[in-house]
Amino acid sequence: MYPVITISREVGSGGHTIGEKVALSLGIPFLDKGIINEAAKATGFDIEAVEKNDESGSLLAKYRNGRFTQGLYLGDDQDKIFAAQKEIILENAKKGPCVIVGRCADHILKEAGIPSLNVYIHADLEYRLEEYSKRYQGTEAEIKKLVKKIDKGRRFFYHYYTDQELGDSSNYDLCLCSSALGEELCVDLIVRAAIKADR
Amino acid sequence: MYPVITISREVGSGGHTIGEKVALSLGIPFLDKGIINEAAKATGFDIEAVEKNDESGSLLAKYRNGRFTQGLYLGDDQDKIFAAQKEIILENAKKGPCVIVGRCADHILKEAGIPSLNVYIHADLEYRLEEYSKRYQGTEAEIKKLVKKIDKGRRFFYHYYTDQELGDSSNYDLCLCSSALGEELCVDLIVRAAIKADR
Repeated sequence: MYPVITISREVGSGGHTIGEKVALSLGIPFLDKGIINEAAKATGFDIEAVEKNDESGSLLAKYRNGRFTQGLYLGDDQDKIFAAQKEIILENAKKGPCVIVGRCADHILKEAGIPSLNVYIHADLEYRLEEYSKRYQGTEAEIKKLVKKIDKGRRFFYHYYTDQELGDSSNYDLCLCSSALGEELCVDLIVRAAIKADR
Repeated sequence: MYPVITISREVGSGGHTIGEKVALSLGIPFLDKGIINEAAKATGFDIEAVEKNDESGSLLAKYRNGRFTQGLYLGDDQDKIFAAQKEIILENAKKGPCVIVGRCADHILKEAGIPSLNVYIHADLEYRLEEYSKRYQGTEAEIKKLVKKIDKGRRFFYHYYTDQELGDSSNYDLCLCSSALGEELCVDLIVRAAIKADR
């Protein structure tokens, strides 16, 4: 049986798309923020609060509003949202193989003792800026500033909930540089690892 | 044409063996410390000094002798040895595809603008201690102390010559956890990346 696959990623690295393609290739469910939040809604959890949560967005909003103080940037609501997402992640992972993007799923599963293939996708900044600018309008300088802020937000978010550094290779089974390897090869290597890994 | 493949690794992760098998599988030359030092000898470089050099050993000796002061642990001789090894690495990489283990080859090739597939092999400490104890005699406590010292030595060595952190995923195209994936799959994934990577 394929393992549960978690994908952590840098913004603009294409990790979300790679995750979708891996799930499609293996024929297993795919979970991202949107799907996890929808599932949380179904449990009756305050939808509005859930939708406000975003590894990057909410932190960025706080940056912008000057309410971003290191160590104090995540309040009780964030913890509740994280707890709800965690529950959905654990519920799905217990059902069987799936691909989960983001949400510190690697750490959540490790803590729960559920075996998973943990993947990290990163890329050169230049590549990530180009990818990001395809999706969002803005000057080169604006895009660069935003990407760097999202990077910071994700790093803080990950560290806050895991006490580990995002991107430290020792936390993952497989780290791939999508700008060097290309999207297709990244998908191929993860699929191959999922098929062959003895779990 | 296959790329030049560099393999950085944690002690006891099996990275050396994985590198040998990748080279064998692709039918390309394999270079490790011993081979690089032999090549340096042939250029007339002081063999005795070269043989004394070791990313881990010489630093460990300094630890043991109490001569290990952070920031001051590598003298002029080390720099000369590193320069000689660098020359051999560059010479071989320019000739064509090969696998180079250790010696900060990833950084040396990047600096020289020579494209390479940069791989980092790591593993859980438990796995590494078991691997290491197969090769060296000692109590469990001694082996653990030694492995941790070698880790420190390699980290210092790598940082001294590259200004980067050993094991930071952003420095590599591919990071693999050999204790999670197994040696065979690590070899397979690197070979696949070497064949498919568009370089």
